[in-house]
Amino acid sequence: MTGISVDKARRYATISREAAHEGVVNLNPIQRGGILPEEARRALLEFGDGYSMCDFCLKGRIDMIDKPPVKRFLSDLASFLGMDVVRLTNRCRDALLAALMGLRRARGGSALVVDSNAHYSTYLAAEALGLEVIEVPNTGYPEFKVKLEAYKDALEAAEERTGQPALAALLTHADPYYGNLNDARAVAEICREHGVPFILNAAYTAGVMPLNGREVGADVLVSSGQKSWSSSGPLGILAMTEEVAEQVLVRSAHFPNKELYLLGCPALGVGLATLMASFPHVVERVTHWPEEVEKARWLAGQLERIEGVRQLGVRPKEHHVICFETPGFHEIAKKHKRKGFFLYEELKARGIVGIQPGLTRRVKLSTYGLTREELARVAEAFHKVAAKYGLDVR
Amino acid sequence: MTGISVDKARRYATISREAAHEGVVNLNPIQRGGILPEEARRALLEFGDGYSMCDFCLKGRIDMIDKPPVKRFLSDLASFLGMDVVRLTNRCRDALLAALMGLRRARGGSALVVDSNAHYSTYLAAEALGLEVIEVPNTGYPEFKVKLEAYKDALEAAEERTGQPALAALLTHADPYYGNLNDARAVAEICREHGVPFILNAAYTAGVMPLNGREVGADVLVSSGQKSWSSSGPLGILAMTEEVAEQVLVRSAHFPNKELYLLGCPALGVGLATLMASFPHVVERVTHWPEEVEKARWLAGQLERIEGVRQLGVRPKEHHVICFETPGFHEIAKKHKRKGFFLYEELKARGIVGIQPGLTRRVKLSTYGLTREELARVAEAFHKVAAKYGLDVR
Repeated sequence: MTGISVDKARRYATISREAAHEGVVNLNPIQRGGILPEEARRALLEFGDGYSMCDFCLKGRIDMIDKPPVKRFLSDLASFLGMDVVRLTNRCRDALLAALMGLRRARGGSALVVDSNAHYSTYLAAEALGLEVIEVPNTGYPEFKVKLEAYKDALEAAEERTGQPALAALLTHADPYYGNLNDARAVAEICREHGVPFILNAAYTAGVMPLNGREVGADVLVSSGQKSWSSSGPLGILAMTEEVAEQVLVRSAHFPNKELYLLGCPALGVGLATLMASFPHVVERVTHWPEEVEKARWLAGQLERIEGVRQLGVRPKEHHVICFETPGFHEIAKKHKRKGFFLYEELKARGIVGIQPGLTRRVKLSTYGLTREELARVAEAFHKVAAKYGLDVR
Repeated sequence: MTGISVDKARRYATISREAAHEGVVNLNPIQRGGILPEEARRALLEFGDGYSMCDFCLKGRIDMIDKPPVKRFLSDLASFLGMDVVRLTNRCRDALLAALMGLRRARGGSALVVDSNAHYSTYLAAEALGLEVIEVPNTGYPEFKVKLEAYKDALEAAEERTGQPALAALLTHADPYYGNLNDARAVAEICREHGVPFILNAAYTAGVMPLNGREVGADVLVSSGQKSWSSSGPLGILAMTEEVAEQVLVRSAHFPNKELYLLGCPALGVGLATLMASFPHVVERVTHWPEEVEKARWLAGQLERIEGVRQLGVRPKEHHVICFETPGFHEIAKKHKRKGFFLYEELKARGIVGIQPGLTRRVKLSTYGLTREELARVAEAFHKVAAKYGLDVR
């Protein structure tokens, strides 16, 4: 009757996660801001069942639940972000998609202006909606710095190409490729002059560093629970000004209690429970941002001691995501029997994981939340691997 | 700088879930098929960090990860469902939305035929895409049985109204209001005759009862991880025939590795980990479906012993979701100082939760996975509350 036996299925019951074992340092840029503190791990078990948040739902809306205090939490989260209204979605990109759908309905517009370091999901959201993407260029190698002043030209190009103002302009606050931190205020100002809504993608910034959406002039701020809020996710944060919220949170014609572009309640058991439980941890940790930046700079300096290694992106680092070009390692990989995997495996043997297995031309990592002792271990491991294969370490 | 202090945030660190305490019987229809077995609770902790499944991602696609064995699991899941291809999404409704977007691009069509007992999210997905909804009627009170043969008229009406064949026809396999189980084969046949793709919403069936999509003739089968697969979710299952998969899983023009209508990788840490860990439990439990139906019938009979109580929907029960009209309780609520909340509170005092707080005109519950002892406690609690307020119990 079914195509698989219980016996065959049984192998999935015991899946485990090697990379999380004690003593392993994980440098993965998508993971560093998502690691759960102890209180969130307790919430995992308490709210593990998928609809656990819905036990005392009286209004058919997760954002209106008082017990546990979801409604109050969303209001506190909005305050923390300096925005008026917050809704949760299942991913940051779904928050963006909902915002674009709502803005399109309210204002029209068929072009989206984005920075050229935007995350791939920004392009996909635009493509899924049939929007034209107008890119704001960056300075290219080696800084790849987005030319913020060029938002003006891009907005004008959008209007010329589509015959109407752009639907919105999006800036990736810190990009996922080089970890360049952008000045959101500068873009917000250009958008305001052009009367175009400004969307800030804060997937790599809100939740790990101080960010006040109102102060930087964001009309919409989206972020990622599992990336930067120590939520088990999947969870997107959609924060808006009152004005944009009215446009985005339209109700269904058939079910007037339900918010159309969210497709009703996002089902947010454990993702929401861990976001809530981690919130004090997050509110506290953003105050340590200067120290996090300092740690990133320290490790960048340590890795640049290796022959040929150069930190790409803006210098000095202003963010925890760091990209290095590593031509020395790439030359070794060409001759190594494990090819590009040698670097990953050499580091793993030294208790360091999280760089992309197989890649040696460039190495991307994050220092967020690591102790100085752990960072020293990371630097030492890279130095030893370099020396083992004959690269100079100054 | 931020609008909330660490001290104020601290209250969220200790959120807890009263309704899950030991000894409490939870009858909530959305929850019964989602309760995690022990092996899934272990997976919760092991994969609690949001990107925990991505440690060994080599191809930038969660469905292609070999370690943990996500790729093999999705293939086994497809076999289990009798379908060719499975992808995961963040909710069942997102699976539906992706399918509709892909089918619309491949085939055209601007109307969606749906049964009149469809879940609200089906209507929202159609509305968000600007589709016209053509409803297939049901028999009304007291059975509310969908008139399956009327799919023919609805498909023809769709073609007449929009000048082209319907985009698709959707049947809610077991509906969330009355727990009526529908004969999917009958609708599949009508759809095939009309050359219209058939989507089966199996949110309340796949994962709790045997279901082979190929045998019933589904082109698309969607289901809900947290509703019926003991996954912590949020998680939707999108299962397709090979032919439909080619239409739905189109690649992005900008990022040809990414599936456009999924917006790339759904972020599926703990939702996916618990789906996998629970899979043997699920594969095993569907073989006990006849016993589950028998338990539903038993409780329906027990509650009908109370004056005025009548089971709505198809009789005898063929599914674990049961809706009762309860006019006796509704009369009591009118005079009770706690109004409609009295019933919820009386049951809760007896260790029974999960009926909608505040409602007494109708009561909806699920018997899925409860032991006979627990069901006896439920029956006794209802009987005692009825007797306490002067209702006859035969």
